[in-house]
Amino acid sequence: MIPRHPDRDQIRIESVLSALGSPMRLAVVRVLDAGGEHNCGSVLNVLSVTAKSTMTHHWRVLRESGVIWQQPSGRENLLSLRREDLDARYPGLLDTILAGKLSDVAVEAATARVPSGG
Amino acid sequence: MIPRHPDRDQIRIESVLSALGSPMRLAVVRVLDAGGEHNCGSVLNVLSVTAKSTMTHHWRVLRESGVIWQQPSGRENLLSLRREDLDARYPGLLDTILAGKLSDVAVEAATARVPSGG
Repeated sequence: MIPRHPDRDQIRIESVLSALGSPMRLAVVRVLDAGGEHNCGSVLNVLSVTAKSTMTHHWRVLRESGVIWQQPSGRENLLSLRREDLDARYPGLLDTILAGKLSDVAVEAATARVPSGG
Repeated sequence: MIPRHPDRDQIRIESVLSALGSPMRLAVVRVLDAGGEHNCGSVLNVLSVTAKSTMTHHWRVLRESGVIWQQPSGRENLLSLRREDLDARYPGLLDTILAGKLSDVAVEAATARVPSGG
């Protein structure tokens, strides 16, 4: 069965934001944005996630919001970011969010710095 | 009691996206972004929402994610958008999202057009 994906015009900003408003799902999107061919297993490898079953919900949310393509290929699902559709509907949104995540990482690194020991 | 608000550096992109990934909360943000002084009641008036009690959760999510200030003033809570903080942490994010919502509204209007009768 080919999973349901919204057409480009059926994508809604609230659904995209809600999909990306989860640390795990945003991490998945960062992996896909970095390029390369991915299936569920390879993404989980990159993220060092072992509990595959807990991801079923996340794949569905990402797919049904229009953030990713999830296309059956043999016994696997190939995953890819719908960047063309997202950029067409919401110019700059994805890049702004990915940059925002990098900014968070920098802020966290700065606030996590402990005074250096002697 | 003054409600808890995150400092600017404590704001996280996932929380902001999750807060804005709800039609009602995004509608609230659009009202606040349009300007004017607002409290909970005046926002609900603009949105024609009568069920005040169901909003308690939404105010909390918006506040704790760093999207709005909710400041006690007499018996009311004054509400305002933390645009300065959001623009500082995530340049362009809020405008991109608000523009995205307008784009959705336009797409919905276009797809809702029925053939004109004779």
